[in-house]
Amino acid sequence: MKSKKVANKYRELQQQICRQLETADGGTKFKSDFWKSDLGEGITMVLTGGDAIEKAAVNFSEVSGSVSQNMRKSLKVESGDSFFATGISSIIHPENPHVPITHMNVRYFQLDSEMAWFGGGIDLTPHYVDIEEASWFHEQLEKICSEFDSRYYQRFKKWADDYFYLPHRDETRGVGGIFFDHLVMQDDNHFESLFAFTKALAEAYPKNYIELLNKNKHRIYTKAEKDWQHLRRGRYVEFNLLYDRGTKFGLDSGGRTESIFLSMPPMASWEYQNQPEKGSKEYETLQLLKKEIDWINKGER
Amino acid sequence: MKSKKVANKYRELQQQICRQLETADGGTKFKSDFWKSDLGEGITMVLTGGDAIEKAAVNFSEVSGSVSQNMRKSLKVESGDSFFATGISSIIHPENPHVPITHMNVRYFQLDSEMAWFGGGIDLTPHYVDIEEASWFHEQLEKICSEFDSRYYQRFKKWADDYFYLPHRDETRGVGGIFFDHLVMQDDNHFESLFAFTKALAEAYPKNYIELLNKNKHRIYTKAEKDWQHLRRGRYVEFNLLYDRGTKFGLDSGGRTESIFLSMPPMASWEYQNQPEKGSKEYETLQLLKKEIDWINKGER
Repeated sequence: MKSKKVANKYRELQQQICRQLETADGGTKFKSDFWKSDLGEGITMVLTGGDAIEKAAVNFSEVSGSVSQNMRKSLKVESGDSFFATGISSIIHPENPHVPITHMNVRYFQLDSEMAWFGGGIDLTPHYVDIEEASWFHEQLEKICSEFDSRYYQRFKKWADDYFYLPHRDETRGVGGIFFDHLVMQDDNHFESLFAFTKALAEAYPKNYIELLNKNKHRIYTKAEKDWQHLRRGRYVEFNLLYDRGTKFGLDSGGRTESIFLSMPPMASWEYQNQPEKGSKEYETLQLLKKEIDWINKGER
Repeated sequence: MKSKKVANKYRELQQQICRQLETADGGTKFKSDFWKSDLGEGITMVLTGGDAIEKAAVNFSEVSGSVSQNMRKSLKVESGDSFFATGISSIIHPENPHVPITHMNVRYFQLDSEMAWFGGGIDLTPHYVDIEEASWFHEQLEKICSEFDSRYYQRFKKWADDYFYLPHRDETRGVGGIFFDHLVMQDDNHFESLFAFTKALAEAYPKNYIELLNKNKHRIYTKAEKDWQHLRRGRYVEFNLLYDRGTKFGLDSGGRTESIFLSMPPMASWEYQNQPEKGSKEYETLQLLKKEIDWINKGER
């Protein structure tokens, strides 16, 4: 059965991600919370107060049930009475403001009508944008994408730009990455290819992040830089509560609140009219939180 | 003109509230930010880093324009091409977790079709619910209400219970207070009475809050209590971004982002599965964040 095969692999990948992050952090362990609900079960892994990681969450779930009216509307599907869904979602909030926040999600959704699709993505939200690093991060994603379909990177990079955007701030959430949804499988070969693509992303996620973590986790930072990190996390909260479809879908469908809010930062702040001085690092970062930046070539300039 | 009369009085009340809060805080002054937009103007007053007050915001605005489709839908009105709106909204986040958060809003809305109404309310969000204090707070509101209409308190108390509610947490935002909207004026006498009601609320707001502030601002608190305050502020953020109609209306109608987000706390936090120990003060508080508590009589028991 395809559904079990995907769920089992995702379950294994969750553990693999956690082990790699623990090693990189330096000792602090994830706490594991197994939960069951009316719809299914899941394992929530949370690491807090690590040396390098302030909070990391890796959530796995495997749920099924009947398709509600709300869900039908939200998914834009007409047929299918029952569904199966499994996925991993993860977020990492680092201690050091010079290390970026990152987020990853891979998911599989199947209807009894045989229709099935994959969705997911990886994106990066630096508190301070470093062009070289953002470029390198996009290159890694481009490499993975190109192993599966030469059009993936361009298409999914744009999708991330459009999705991770806060209209009321006219800011992107970070430097983006890739985002995709409703990649409907055409046949068994196509299923295998999409499945392998999501596996490759989940495997690359800790590996690439750990590069950025190791590079920056020992950098000295000031109180002003930590304050700025808290403000940027405030924007992250705004995005997640106002625009994130996963949050909305979760709350609308009566999902498990504690899992839905896993992505929330350990500490965030807001300040009236915070306007960084022209030319400051904070100011430069704001100039780079824009859609349609060709990160790969920007880094090579 | 009614609109100018209301706006001028609200403008005056804003200053009065700020002066009283400054005196109570002990020295820190509000910073005043006058702004103009396509729709009108306003004055945003913010006090941060005071001795007793971590952040207080008092916003006044006076705007007018043509009624958009979005606005028509949101306000459920059929006639009227242009509108006028003025109001004060305020929030206070105290330094000491034993002092509650409070919020107040009064507003007047008028259409060229001559239809006009008032809305507003005052509510209290303690980090630690003190039954006597919550009861006293509701008594003060009941007294003001009863000077205008004997049915107001019961009606508006229920409205606040229903409005300041987080369904995904099955928690009220705090111990409530009063909330009302669309109190449509029937004639000139009715206008004067509703106007006087909102004035009385705006006047009582700093007075009553300062009682609670003075009573508790010197209480000793622990780091654990401050951590709890940050978590409770996280819930406040959830309410404001997920459910608050003012936030939604403001963002949908392209309002001034910095003013819409004034109510956000200076610092908030989230923690996975924070479950206070049975019998702890934190646990007792959660038991009291429920609708339909008859606060006035609960305090007298």
